[in-house]
Amino acid sequence: MKEQCITLSQGSGGVESNALIEGVIYKILGDIIVDGGEDAGVCESKGKIALSTDSYVVSPIFFPGGDIGKLCVCGSSNDIAMRGAKPRYLSLGFILEEGFSVADLEKILHSIRTEAVNGSLKILSGDTKVVPKGAADRIYINTTAIGEVSKVNWCVQNIQEGDEIIVSAPVGTHGAVIFCSRNEIALQSDLQSDCAQLYPMVESLHNYHIHTMRDATRGGLAAVLNEWVRATQTEIIIEEENIPILQQVKGVCEILGLEALSLANEGVCVMAVPPSESEKVLALLKSHPLGANACVIGRVSHKVQDINQARVILYNAWGGKRYLEYPQGELLPRIC
Amino acid sequence: MKEQCITLSQGSGGVESNALIEGVIYKILGDIIVDGGEDAGVCESKGKIALSTDSYVVSPIFFPGGDIGKLCVCGSSNDIAMRGAKPRYLSLGFILEEGFSVADLEKILHSIRTEAVNGSLKILSGDTKVVPKGAADRIYINTTAIGEVSKVNWCVQNIQEGDEIIVSAPVGTHGAVIFCSRNEIALQSDLQSDCAQLYPMVESLHNYHIHTMRDATRGGLAAVLNEWVRATQTEIIIEEENIPILQQVKGVCEILGLEALSLANEGVCVMAVPPSESEKVLALLKSHPLGANACVIGRVSHKVQDINQARVILYNAWGGKRYLEYPQGELLPRIC
Repeated sequence: MKEQCITLSQGSGGVESNALIEGVIYKILGDIIVDGGEDAGVCESKGKIALSTDSYVVSPIFFPGGDIGKLCVCGSSNDIAMRGAKPRYLSLGFILEEGFSVADLEKILHSIRTEAVNGSLKILSGDTKVVPKGAADRIYINTTAIGEVSKVNWCVQNIQEGDEIIVSAPVGTHGAVIFCSRNEIALQSDLQSDCAQLYPMVESLHNYHIHTMRDATRGGLAAVLNEWVRATQTEIIIEEENIPILQQVKGVCEILGLEALSLANEGVCVMAVPPSESEKVLALLKSHPLGANACVIGRVSHKVQDINQARVILYNAWGGKRYLEYPQGELLPRIC
Repeated sequence: MKEQCITLSQGSGGVESNALIEGVIYKILGDIIVDGGEDAGVCESKGKIALSTDSYVVSPIFFPGGDIGKLCVCGSSNDIAMRGAKPRYLSLGFILEEGFSVADLEKILHSIRTEAVNGSLKILSGDTKVVPKGAADRIYINTTAIGEVSKVNWCVQNIQEGDEIIVSAPVGTHGAVIFCSRNEIALQSDLQSDCAQLYPMVESLHNYHIHTMRDATRGGLAAVLNEWVRATQTEIIIEEENIPILQQVKGVCEILGLEALSLANEGVCVMAVPPSESEKVLALLKSHPLGANACVIGRVSHKVQDINQARVILYNAWGGKRYLEYPQGELLPRIC
């Protein structure tokens, strides 16, 4: 049987576009689409809303632990969750390369569906464009998520001296998995991307006093902590041995010369929490499967006068120290 | 001076990404960005909101009458306006090809800025990805617009027998301009894309009784009318000689064998209006520069029993009739 492929005519807004939308996309996502058939979807909203957009260009599109479909739902949902908001709706914008396999598109749509249902997310608007062969690499997806802002206000400016830094799970896993997949490095392990929705875990933290929270995606833990010290003009001190990293990820990093702290995560959040709250926060995180390995890795040491002193300092087990630099260079293109 | 180009490292979430975002994007858009620095932007909302997403992959990215930046703001704003909602916020997701000119990016950002300010739109969230050379064609932009739904409820299911069909402006212009630009057909004319925001014109129609409204983008007038007859199981009759088409567009279509009614528009809306309202609606449209050539082109003739009878029929000046088909085939890839 000939494999069905995406054609340019499916991007033209006519009969074939319609066949793709109704025969493939609606067939799989139809029952979670709100207001189908209109150019804009309408939903109720109460009070403040949070909105976050991301384009997903990950390569390969299928990887251990997920695919571009699961990734786009989790990634956008997480950005909403990190603002203390409840993810509610998604938009989906597909850019498909002419010749892309319809079977692969269907697999991705099923992943989107599974993950959206999982997070009680509805789809409010969609768009499909087809570009000629060579003008994209198989499939790119843009998702914009919106959510209802709750009473909490987690934002970077809340960070204070003395705050403890908590990570919810081992870091660097998604980056290591993508790196191995892309370079066809056969891992003698079952290492899988950490790609997951964080809202179910962090929702229970709404009743605690948390200063800020961020999911450590591109640029990893190193990017988040460096953004925090710069934005708040502080110094952060981290105990390197406290940072959870899976043994297999350490192995991959050692072999390939990668820095796990700069590798992307897709299901790990970092928090700044007042010391009085950190024990309770940790207990709550640990009660959730995604947070089983949560731990305090360091603290906000003090305010600094000069922005150039706003650094992240890593202490190792032997008392040695080094700066954890803001990631630089071509880490890993197309990690998400 | 060496031309600055986008590098892969600018998509990695580290120092260089930051330099691109702060040094280029924020420099131009900074004052219309809400909540910069957080992964999700937060805004107030009252009551219902409308949301619409679109990816823009137009080629060429600069064309007479606009560019991909102007297009993305107008296009997404228009989808919101067509639901009777007031466009308020945008997200911007850039996919940049390694090697893309920073000067061209800046031009596009200035267009986005001008058009957003024009429509009182703020930017609530942004994202920038860089893909290796050959994995995209220069720049793709996804915009998601959100707006406040007003008291009006324009939707396709409101259409009734006897409704008059109004178009707000000459059709086929954007499509003809892109076609000529792409094929380097030198036009002896000043033909420009109709790319424009429709909300300022249609806002004044909120007080009138309009059944539905749609901007005729990909697939043009032919796609909108065919979608309407299918969705409502009706027949629509159009007087071909009443359809406004610019002389230059007619010329291009004749030479190239294109059907103007299937060509994309980016500043034209089509409405179904009860006959009792159509005179007032027309007067109001004509009082706005974008609607100066608005006119009634036909009407919803009657309900049909069989979905296959749900057709759009064109009558010409000599009484001849033909079906206006739902566009089919590779009309013009990458028109928007």
